[in-house]
Amino acid sequence: MIRLALITAGSVVLAGCATASGAPVGTEATTAPATPAGSSDAPDTMRWLYGSGEAAAASIQTWRQIADYAVAVASAGATPRSVPMGLPGYEGGIGAPSCTSDDGVQKPLAAVFDVDETVLLNTGYEYWQALSGKGFDPAEWGQWERGGAGIAPPVPGAVTGIRRLREAGITVIFNTNRDTGSAAGTVAALEAAGVGPAVHRETLFLRGDDAMGGRKDGRRARIAETHCVIAMAGDNLGDFADVLNEDESAIQQRRAMVARGDYARLWGNGWFLVPNPVYGAWQEGTIDQVFPPETRWRPQIGDAPAIMEQ
Amino acid sequence: MIRLALITAGSVVLAGCATASGAPVGTEATTAPATPAGSSDAPDTMRWLYGSGEAAAASIQTWRQIADYAVAVASAGATPRSVPMGLPGYEGGIGAPSCTSDDGVQKPLAAVFDVDETVLLNTGYEYWQALSGKGFDPAEWGQWERGGAGIAPPVPGAVTGIRRLREAGITVIFNTNRDTGSAAGTVAALEAAGVGPAVHRETLFLRGDDAMGGRKDGRRARIAETHCVIAMAGDNLGDFADVLNEDESAIQQRRAMVARGDYARLWGNGWFLVPNPVYGAWQEGTIDQVFPPETRWRPQIGDAPAIMEQ
Repeated sequence: MIRLALITAGSVVLAGCATASGAPVGTEATTAPATPAGSSDAPDTMRWLYGSGEAAAASIQTWRQIADYAVAVASAGATPRSVPMGLPGYEGGIGAPSCTSDDGVQKPLAAVFDVDETVLLNTGYEYWQALSGKGFDPAEWGQWERGGAGIAPPVPGAVTGIRRLREAGITVIFNTNRDTGSAAGTVAALEAAGVGPAVHRETLFLRGDDAMGGRKDGRRARIAETHCVIAMAGDNLGDFADVLNEDESAIQQRRAMVARGDYARLWGNGWFLVPNPVYGAWQEGTIDQVFPPETRWRPQIGDAPAIMEQ
Repeated sequence: MIRLALITAGSVVLAGCATASGAPVGTEATTAPATPAGSSDAPDTMRWLYGSGEAAAASIQTWRQIADYAVAVASAGATPRSVPMGLPGYEGGIGAPSCTSDDGVQKPLAAVFDVDETVLLNTGYEYWQALSGKGFDPAEWGQWERGGAGIAPPVPGAVTGIRRLREAGITVIFNTNRDTGSAAGTVAALEAAGVGPAVHRETLFLRGDDAMGGRKDGRRARIAETHCVIAMAGDNLGDFADVLNEDESAIQQRRAMVARGDYARLWGNGWFLVPNPVYGAWQEGTIDQVFPPETRWRPQIGDAPAIMEQ
């Protein structure tokens, strides 16, 4: 659809601006705001992800697709093969490890998932970001990691999808950039949302478990030592392979890389992307960088010819 | 993922505001802007949909899911049944019409798709919106409908998905709110993007083809008279049933309706949602409306106890 919705597009941008620049935010909002900041327009990214039926539908269908795919692989009878994944030391940064251990035993099947905005919605923290207008604050995020259990709901479809995987004998493993020091809070949040259990360093791997920071390839390698990973899902390309995030500022190249050739064949076929337009490594780019020259257009104004971008 | 990305979330909101309120937009930008508006930050919604590898991945996997599903139904051997859809005069607004005509003949199989941000990306028009900072302008959008052919690229995955459907003998039908007076331009845009052919009133139905305005139920009924519709896809709930958009301001109810019960079973199973956070019927809601009370959270500031929203 397009017509009705676009009528409000411009006003929404402006309304968002009025909020960020004009409403009483910061320390005032953290105590007792005189004007209710919650009555300001929510950002469109949050309206879509946390408020829309469309986003709920998209994640339900993606979790159905994940479970359908992985359960079919698990019950196919043939010896399963690992899905390609980012791993340290592989040529091109991506490989498919053996599903047989050194002593010839088939490794147990696993599916590997990011946590934030893949299985949990961080509504609590994002509400606070929208309300306060503040940027990311590591101390506040740390509080949320440790104390958000029971407030963060599951991504729609994740509870059913994860239950189906476990019923098919597939181990569910989480690989997240939440901090290793907040392991207990993350375990509690997963369990409270109905997608647990998770056990740190067995079925839950966190930032700080190794020396690679937010890069997940090392944790993937560790998981693949003991498991045959048949499916992966996340909201960011780094949930599949670090190499895909090697140059986040190369907007068009990053997009083209995953939409063509070998990687394109993996989406919906072992790799599953849960949509999240609220934040991510893609969050860069000017208008000119997001819209390459061949996609630009301007209307004709009065009798003047249309001006095309060069 | 969450950690690294959130660092920029706040600054992006502010940067977007500086653009909308401070950059030279409007009539200046339509002629020869003194400062390059294209060097302003793009809105996050557009960065994600038009610029990110994540969005490309999401639409590729969704188009794979559509084709896998419909081809499986078409080749299953059993007499296919219609997918539920919004139709005038049905109790509850949704029904599944017979796939057999009055004279007992099986109707040909079809899949029904929205156009904008489902099979075509309106990069040209959205570039202009980002650049000008203007709201929706029906005259400008009309120019784009009539003249955008060759600029609008296909949604990643749509060309392959639609080809697979046609190869399986499934008729591809478009049901869009582009205007009936712009039929030729829309046909040209679909063909230039590689997802044609489309023939007005045979495989292309437009706003104004009937008296129901932007409501698509009447056009769905017309399509179902002659075809057995086995799959539908769109970026908006109205692409499936008008009743789902009956109250766009009832944010949480609209979301809950599609995420539970009978409708939840359809996502990825006959109904397919192509993610579009740039515009839509979901584009309403204050912070308080988007985040229901049980999902809200505030950090503890200093020694003060955390203040929870009621």
